[in-house]
Amino acid sequence: MTLLFCSSSDNADVWRAEITKHLPDLEMRVWPDIGDVADIDMALVWKPPAGLLASLPNLRLIVSLGAGVEPLLEDPTLPEVPLVRMVSEGLTVDMAGYVALQVLRWHRLVDEYGALQAASRWQPLDHRPASDVTVGVLGLGELGAASARTLRTMDYRLLGWSRSPKSVEGVESFSGADGLAAMLPRCDLLVCLLPLTAETRGILNAELFAALPAGAVVVNAARGGHLVEADLLAALDRGHLRGASLDVFGTEPLPADHPFWRHPKIRITPHVAAITHPSRSAVQVADAITAFRSGRPLANLVDRRRGY
Amino acid sequence: MTLLFCSSSDNADVWRAEITKHLPDLEMRVWPDIGDVADIDMALVWKPPAGLLASLPNLRLIVSLGAGVEPLLEDPTLPEVPLVRMVSEGLTVDMAGYVALQVLRWHRLVDEYGALQAASRWQPLDHRPASDVTVGVLGLGELGAASARTLRTMDYRLLGWSRSPKSVEGVESFSGADGLAAMLPRCDLLVCLLPLTAETRGILNAELFAALPAGAVVVNAARGGHLVEADLLAALDRGHLRGASLDVFGTEPLPADHPFWRHPKIRITPHVAAITHPSRSAVQVADAITAFRSGRPLANLVDRRRGY
Repeated sequence: MTLLFCSSSDNADVWRAEITKHLPDLEMRVWPDIGDVADIDMALVWKPPAGLLASLPNLRLIVSLGAGVEPLLEDPTLPEVPLVRMVSEGLTVDMAGYVALQVLRWHRLVDEYGALQAASRWQPLDHRPASDVTVGVLGLGELGAASARTLRTMDYRLLGWSRSPKSVEGVESFSGADGLAAMLPRCDLLVCLLPLTAETRGILNAELFAALPAGAVVVNAARGGHLVEADLLAALDRGHLRGASLDVFGTEPLPADHPFWRHPKIRITPHVAAITHPSRSAVQVADAITAFRSGRPLANLVDRRRGY
Repeated sequence: MTLLFCSSSDNADVWRAEITKHLPDLEMRVWPDIGDVADIDMALVWKPPAGLLASLPNLRLIVSLGAGVEPLLEDPTLPEVPLVRMVSEGLTVDMAGYVALQVLRWHRLVDEYGALQAASRWQPLDHRPASDVTVGVLGLGELGAASARTLRTMDYRLLGWSRSPKSVEGVESFSGADGLAAMLPRCDLLVCLLPLTAETRGILNAELFAALPAGAVVVNAARGGHLVEADLLAALDRGHLRGASLDVFGTEPLPADHPFWRHPKIRITPHVAAITHPSRSAVQVADAITAFRSGRPLANLVDRRRGY
């Protein structure tokens, strides 16, 4: 029995170390060095290349490294074998930490003080009191509410937008197109945590950036499809936006020649804002493999018609 | 009437801009370019050089930029004129933000991802779930409690130490020498927020660092006197500590030739973790000056025997 590992967003060595704590005899092959495809009967994957899984003649189990399996289900060649997904409890607090970190790094001038340290210069800069800094959150689901809760403890002013009206404690809430137009001019930082739908695709575009005040910062921790990349570069380069923190991209991994990498106003993380932690979740993978080997029922089996 | 401004930790231009919103006719001179000392009748200061205020023959009012006036009262030459201190409401949340930022920057690998971005490399690294990361806080007063509250919303494990037993919600509390010895080996990050007393001076020393687990991070946002600088450098250089975030120093401004500036494992900020914000506090300075000019009673007047 051999497990294929394929993900550009997860560390294969860490996963191997954690899974083999539970299954010492497991053989794991990391794409693209997968040897004889006939050996592989299980796959542990996040966004594998289309057709890869279909090329494995003896595949009998797929485990998704993500809680959302929509990237897998979009592949028409996905083999008709049992598909299991991770159910992670840590995603929400992980995201709250990422959002807090990005708000704090821009507000508290991390890069400016880094440059001063490199020059051995003692130069206090003026950061505004957090009570004068307004953070707008797009998307008021579980992730948005948790992020707002953390930021509120530090006295940031919170605005939030969702398609239909929602109420979150400590957050002044807006909804619909009129609500978005009313909220944007007040946001010193704008954080996107929306689901990706037909309505929200490309929402981070030139028109939205122009509605933000000069010097605003944009944080995208949702999906690459929310952002019109050329519009962000234009808004940064004409000096309207101060910066952007991006965790997600239209193409992942972000190609090495992409202009985002070298842009002085962009801070990149490789889709790690909220992750499935190997130390917590390897046991789920091991359980799925053990159940599969012994013919026992699989937990967190995806219903493909339902989509989760 | 002429105001002297003297502080190595505050931005004179920002203070001037904010104060002159309230007092457009005010003349402010910034140390060391102070012109004729006989012109100066008021001083707005943070840690002025000893003897500076005594050298001003017509000084009749001192306003402290800090809430704590102990650095002023330690100067035996301090003139016997009214001394007013800032009373800032934003210090506590400012500190909670600084502490959260330092915990997040080390836990969420800000510098590692910065280096990867500089190399245009997409390489997800493994960050542990926050619920597996233990933060120890030295000092469980208002600042420690506020910092713990913010970190708890992100699921960090909180330990706290104070000289006498204290109870803070969500924090496993320790006290006394035995309590410190029990707490230190569990701390992935240790944050110092203690008052500086004869008992706590030099508490961040070789013995304490050795009691921390390998790879721990130290954050000092209290006073420079808590830290034995040579011991920190030794613990970093032998690889026992992963890094340190320092906001306070034995000598401020930190001299340009100090080894901390260029140390790859040290992150420096110039005593700005919790500041008196000009945009919020300039009105207090203007009120003090106006009251002084018109002979009205002064708010926040320091009782020198009491010390505050």
